[in-house]
Amino acid sequence: MASTNLRFLSRAEHRAWLETQARLPAGFRVGTSRFAFAPRELPRPVSMNLVLLSLDRPTPAFAARYTKNAFAGAPVLLGRRRLDGPAVGAVVVNNKVANVCAPGGVEAAERVCAGAAGLLGLSPEEVLPASTGVIGWRLPVDEMLGALPAAAGALKEGSVLPAAEAILTTDLYPKVRRAEVGEGGIVGFAKGAGMIEPNLATMLVFLLTDLDVPRAALRTALGAAVEESFNRISVDTDTSTSDTVLLLSSRHLPAPPPGAFEAALARVCADLAEDVVRNGEGVHHVIRACVAGAPDERVARLVGKSVVNSPLLKAAVNGNDPNVGRLLCAVGKIAGALGMALDPSRAVMSVGGEVVLEGGAMRLDPAREGRLVRHLKEAELYASAAPVNGVYRPPIDFPPHEKCVEIVIDLGMGAATATVLGADLSHEYVSENADYRS
Amino acid sequence: MASTNLRFLSRAEHRAWLETQARLPAGFRVGTSRFAFAPRELPRPVSMNLVLLSLDRPTPAFAARYTKNAFAGAPVLLGRRRLDGPAVGAVVVNNKVANVCAPGGVEAAERVCAGAAGLLGLSPEEVLPASTGVIGWRLPVDEMLGALPAAAGALKEGSVLPAAEAILTTDLYPKVRRAEVGEGGIVGFAKGAGMIEPNLATMLVFLLTDLDVPRAALRTALGAAVEESFNRISVDTDTSTSDTVLLLSSRHLPAPPPGAFEAALARVCADLAEDVVRNGEGVHHVIRACVAGAPDERVARLVGKSVVNSPLLKAAVNGNDPNVGRLLCAVGKIAGALGMALDPSRAVMSVGGEVVLEGGAMRLDPAREGRLVRHLKEAELYASAAPVNGVYRPPIDFPPHEKCVEIVIDLGMGAATATVLGADLSHEYVSENADYRS
Repeated sequence: MASTNLRFLSRAEHRAWLETQARLPAGFRVGTSRFAFAPRELPRPVSMNLVLLSLDRPTPAFAARYTKNAFAGAPVLLGRRRLDGPAVGAVVVNNKVANVCAPGGVEAAERVCAGAAGLLGLSPEEVLPASTGVIGWRLPVDEMLGALPAAAGALKEGSVLPAAEAILTTDLYPKVRRAEVGEGGIVGFAKGAGMIEPNLATMLVFLLTDLDVPRAALRTALGAAVEESFNRISVDTDTSTSDTVLLLSSRHLPAPPPGAFEAALARVCADLAEDVVRNGEGVHHVIRACVAGAPDERVARLVGKSVVNSPLLKAAVNGNDPNVGRLLCAVGKIAGALGMALDPSRAVMSVGGEVVLEGGAMRLDPAREGRLVRHLKEAELYASAAPVNGVYRPPIDFPPHEKCVEIVIDLGMGAATATVLGADLSHEYVSENADYRS
Repeated sequence: MASTNLRFLSRAEHRAWLETQARLPAGFRVGTSRFAFAPRELPRPVSMNLVLLSLDRPTPAFAARYTKNAFAGAPVLLGRRRLDGPAVGAVVVNNKVANVCAPGGVEAAERVCAGAAGLLGLSPEEVLPASTGVIGWRLPVDEMLGALPAAAGALKEGSVLPAAEAILTTDLYPKVRRAEVGEGGIVGFAKGAGMIEPNLATMLVFLLTDLDVPRAALRTALGAAVEESFNRISVDTDTSTSDTVLLLSSRHLPAPPPGAFEAALARVCADLAEDVVRNGEGVHHVIRACVAGAPDERVARLVGKSVVNSPLLKAAVNGNDPNVGRLLCAVGKIAGALGMALDPSRAVMSVGGEVVLEGGAMRLDPAREGRLVRHLKEAELYASAAPVNGVYRPPIDFPPHEKCVEIVIDLGMGAATATVLGADLSHEYVSENADYRS
């Protein structure tokens, strides 16, 4: 899925690489501010980051994909309405409060957009909102309006990295990817760590380009790129209420030849999607499940999802335990649920290049097991640090490498394929989510 | 779902209660034996339990429901074939090795059945096999044949408890339930702790009755009872390759009036299904999701499953954290995935009797949050004990009570309902499954 295979030896090295990715395309500026507020729902104050993303002039060339969760957040509801509007000139993003099913949520988002519009000389309809954080809490509109001038005052060209850092919640590090194409480029940055199963993932993704690709072509390209990237990943099956992928063009540079923009956008999305999984909550291993020989692409994707979402397989991978019986269970359960005419004797499964099932029987012996353990250990991002007061925290704040646990499944039924990325299940995930809010 | 609401203050009290449930119906005997063997797949010996369950004469009155997993185990394949046979006289059960996708698995199961048949004066086709344990390992047939005479020699009437104990793997305690009906009764016992999401759950369940209900009626009753019990639970979404529910009648006593047997069987199955969840791997809380107002029963069940299978909600419940936004996320994600015309403003959700969502908005305040925390704590089975060498082990070996986290969801769309049972996600689950085999 990803087009790169990087290895970082230090946080500084990762940071330097991020800077190489983060250069803003012409026509964009970002600014951030941070403030404390007291949610009505919690008896103590918390901090919120505000991000302003502005264009030098409103653009009709924008595209968005939103969550399919039926309880979509207010920023999603408002954004969907504005998709048919004439132009977008800015985006306001906040973390900490998702503004989902909060009383008066849409009005609150509209007030924030109007505040940003006033500072930037735009109409309120030209500002898109995006929020991530706790569901049900009310947006602190007055405090956000008070903090917006600082964010507007901080707007500058150069690097997208301040924005990529400010939108994070439980993420360990910022996620930024770029592609050069034609005379310009595309830069994307993403937030996403838990509540990740696309359709879309629990993510906010912002894709910025200076290439003058028309609205209709942008939207087609974004739909295709999202389908093959963010809709092929899962950290925990939990499709968020706030998933958002925005694509904005400043139209400063001529469009590249047909196909080139689409390919570059697909690459940026695939790389960011893998980054989101690799930085998923508690992730020690990224699992790549390549499904082949499926009767159709939907089945291939569902089988891949079943594998990467199996709690038992995820826990085994976490322990570097090549319990491949659980792989077989995960494939068999979805095949049974879908009523597929799967012939176990025609299926072939491998892990790390080792065939583990063929001709209806598993191939297990201590030597093979040793090689499988080695593959799992090589794909591990970190080993758990001892818990403090019973709480596990990841000991890393940068991704040391981009290796995956490589699972290949040939169903022996047809010609369709799909590749899905997922993650293991760890004590850090439980610690993170057993008491996220307090 | 369960017909009882018990509270046990000690292991001895739980044990005494199990004895009251465990009386064997007339015509049945059970015997067990235990032995060590060296799996070819593991460089050290392990122990296996064998259970023989025998009838005083072969009975045509038997019924079975098997997993829908496409990689069904050899005992399932063999059992399905024998469903149309004239009679069953015994069942051989083993733990430790599931005999799934192992080379020569069906032949191995046949040899074990033939060995038992020889000892009991039956034909091999009159013996049903059942296995639970590691997938892919080969059944140690020679060692099992060597151990069968001891199990046959131990056969006796009285209590089913020795068998209920011998079939366990990672279970913390045996699970036995009975119902009296007409002149006789039904006793059931179950194994099941991980790889639990019915269709069926990862379970072996044996239901024994002395009531002379004909084969066709037994099968209809079992199908209905399983649908409303074992197909309504999930510990970890992982439908096992070995799920089996067997129902055998010794035909010693006259059948009760129409409907009475069916109701009693449904009650035993519902109670056992709840026991399986309560004793699920790492379970601190049982979660009961009652879904009402659904357009049809399937949607009600899928919404309930989505709730109890949400890793984020499960982790929050584990931490006694009433993060009800995750409840809303779990309902919304399945509604979105199914393309349901759910109107968020018509949905009502409550936890522990507290309304948390109504009119499209969540109701959150510190006082309500305090009551929700209390509800979660009251439903907790145990708090984690400190890990030893990084491994969490449950500090209980009996269920202290039968309370649940009570979630009620009215979708406001129709009249269909379903109740689903699930469990939280804990450090004990991760510890158990990150290195189950070693």
